[in-house]
Amino acid sequence: MRTAICERLGVEFPLFAFSHCRDVVAAVTNAGGFGVLGAIAYTPEQLDTELTWLDERVGGRPYGVDVLLPGKVDAQALDREARLADAVPERHRDFVAHLMAKYGVGGAGGPIGGPIGGPAAGSADEVGRRVTAAGAAGLIDVALKHPIGLVASALGPPPPELVARAREAGVPVAALVGTVEHARRQVEAGADIIVAQGTEAGGHTGEISTMVLVPQVVDAVGPVPVLAAGGIASGRQMAAAMALGAEGVWCGSVWLTTEEAETAPAVKRKMLAASSLDTVRSRSRTGKPARQLRSAWTDEWDSGQESPGPLGMPLQLLVAESAMARIGAAAERGEPGALELANYFVGQVVGQLDQVRPAREVVYAMVSEFADAVERLGRLSG
Amino acid sequence: MRTAICERLGVEFPLFAFSHCRDVVAAVTNAGGFGVLGAIAYTPEQLDTELTWLDERVGGRPYGVDVLLPGKVDAQALDREARLADAVPERHRDFVAHLMAKYGVGGAGGPIGGPIGGPAAGSADEVGRRVTAAGAAGLIDVALKHPIGLVASALGPPPPELVARAREAGVPVAALVGTVEHARRQVEAGADIIVAQGTEAGGHTGEISTMVLVPQVVDAVGPVPVLAAGGIASGRQMAAAMALGAEGVWCGSVWLTTEEAETAPAVKRKMLAASSLDTVRSRSRTGKPARQLRSAWTDEWDSGQESPGPLGMPLQLLVAESAMARIGAAAERGEPGALELANYFVGQVVGQLDQVRPAREVVYAMVSEFADAVERLGRLSG
Repeated sequence: MRTAICERLGVEFPLFAFSHCRDVVAAVTNAGGFGVLGAIAYTPEQLDTELTWLDERVGGRPYGVDVLLPGKVDAQALDREARLADAVPERHRDFVAHLMAKYGVGGAGGPIGGPIGGPAAGSADEVGRRVTAAGAAGLIDVALKHPIGLVASALGPPPPELVARAREAGVPVAALVGTVEHARRQVEAGADIIVAQGTEAGGHTGEISTMVLVPQVVDAVGPVPVLAAGGIASGRQMAAAMALGAEGVWCGSVWLTTEEAETAPAVKRKMLAASSLDTVRSRSRTGKPARQLRSAWTDEWDSGQESPGPLGMPLQLLVAESAMARIGAAAERGEPGALELANYFVGQVVGQLDQVRPAREVVYAMVSEFADAVERLGRLSG
Repeated sequence: MRTAICERLGVEFPLFAFSHCRDVVAAVTNAGGFGVLGAIAYTPEQLDTELTWLDERVGGRPYGVDVLLPGKVDAQALDREARLADAVPERHRDFVAHLMAKYGVGGAGGPIGGPIGGPAAGSADEVGRRVTAAGAAGLIDVALKHPIGLVASALGPPPPELVARAREAGVPVAALVGTVEHARRQVEAGADIIVAQGTEAGGHTGEISTMVLVPQVVDAVGPVPVLAAGGIASGRQMAAAMALGAEGVWCGSVWLTTEEAETAPAVKRKMLAASSLDTVRSRSRTGKPARQLRSAWTDEWDSGQESPGPLGMPLQLLVAESAMARIGAAAERGEPGALELANYFVGQVVGQLDQVRPAREVVYAMVSEFADAVERLGRLSG
């Protein structure tokens, strides 16, 4: 397959794989796609370790790094002296305690902002900091010391310093957007590639569907190349996205149920069983609307009678990450209340994910189905 | 273009045009597409007149008729003796009166359930009745006396009598669905064609996007042919839908801003100016979630402090149609409050609609852009 973006980035298939898991990034990159590591889970030192691990495995093939740069954050996150956790109001702490009791989540109740487990070691306080321009800059400095082929930023226009640093290093900058207006703003801010992400996508997402958004963004920012994201987990969907004018696709959810994914086993099982009706766009995990598995966590925050309503970003992220660390551990022990609460970011394509496959196989299946879909279309068109 | 559905229905392009306006239906049908007249606005006698008008203009080319058959309706609508309007609670009447006063809507305040203007002459009470199986049967009896090529039903599985009558007349039945489960149920109930409609569509719509829904429905009901609806108003979007496995597309919104459309001028201007962010899925016009222009009407019902919340179907339809008749007239007089309230069903593609064109031109442009998109895809695929 040959799109301008393939030439520019030196990849075989314009299939971008966003994942927090280095094994997925390596597998996709080695299969001819373009893996992009979500950096937000790591400290700069950890990120350095992850990228070194990747460099040793991808044989010079290009891969990318993704950071989160919300346009607006809670003011407390910008004050480096304050402990973020101190800014979490009492009634939000109380509500979390109430949820833990109501759902009988066992285990030690770590303090909000305290250590969180999983691959993202460190404290929730640190994770909260990373979604600021200063936090992201620390991650990007590390990333640019590695032979990366792309820096991607989600949520807000990349700060000028970030663009300048990437430019200097010869690394293109991609930006995720959910509206035409944001796409224009990102291009003005220096983005080299736009990822137009529909509402059906997992994680932070807007309201406009991929089918509607992509052609509008293509028309608005051309000749800047556009990747389509949201609702894409098969070759037919990849062909559809490219029929809309995209030069490639950006997929996240489809990797969460691969063999390599570090998705918590209980959550992975939920995803394999879920239908496309089982996701919700909720502010309950990060403070900004993000699509995720609907669970007791989202129900309680979004419509529970006692809910104080979610905080902004990153305070809600702090609250949720701290609680989810405990909920996740309890869910793995099989505690039923914790299983009800457990969730994770995933798009509506979760309804298509019903088996665990190696990431490499997913890439090959998508490329092959893409070719079939294009051939069928050609026949219909006559 | 040649898909199985083209052969079966005897059309050139698998482009289905849903419209309440006979001029649009005629124009699309004569341009090689397949027009489908929304029958809900008409009494059986009026429908007979409309279809006779169509028969005289389409030269034997096939067209269809669409009725609304909600799976669940307010019990009052099934009691043929009661006046539907009597079942509207006092606080809903009061809320409408409050809105009219707050937005300074002038003109006579017709009683709820009373006569409504526009192309859908008759009383709102009658309109409310038409969304019952008995009401729809009356319309279908009339339709089957004409050489129609399709009966379509939205919202619920078609009652067995309806399917039997259409079958006997040799007319295929199409059913609109928003989930895989509903698609399966419709096929079991005898539907010959499934229209898989994504959340971005105008009118009654579910939560799953077209990109995600269509392939799942295709896989679930094949070999029953699937049309894609929602987010389709251009040839690129048509190509995308067919890459997903659809045999054709079903479009509604794109016709609302055509020359032929009877869309109220003030609402048409709103549509031409709207972006894709300016729609909302709201129960405020019919009692069931339907995508429409966001306006003071949807805001007040969905989140206004004094809102009693919408009623079910068809009572909310009754309330809304009665009020909208008055609001529409005031909006045409240029009353600012009425202009704030005025709205109509439309999908997220409204952001693409920025000029008034003849419906025929829209068909030709879509077919031509479809061919270009398929050719581009073929080149990319190599």
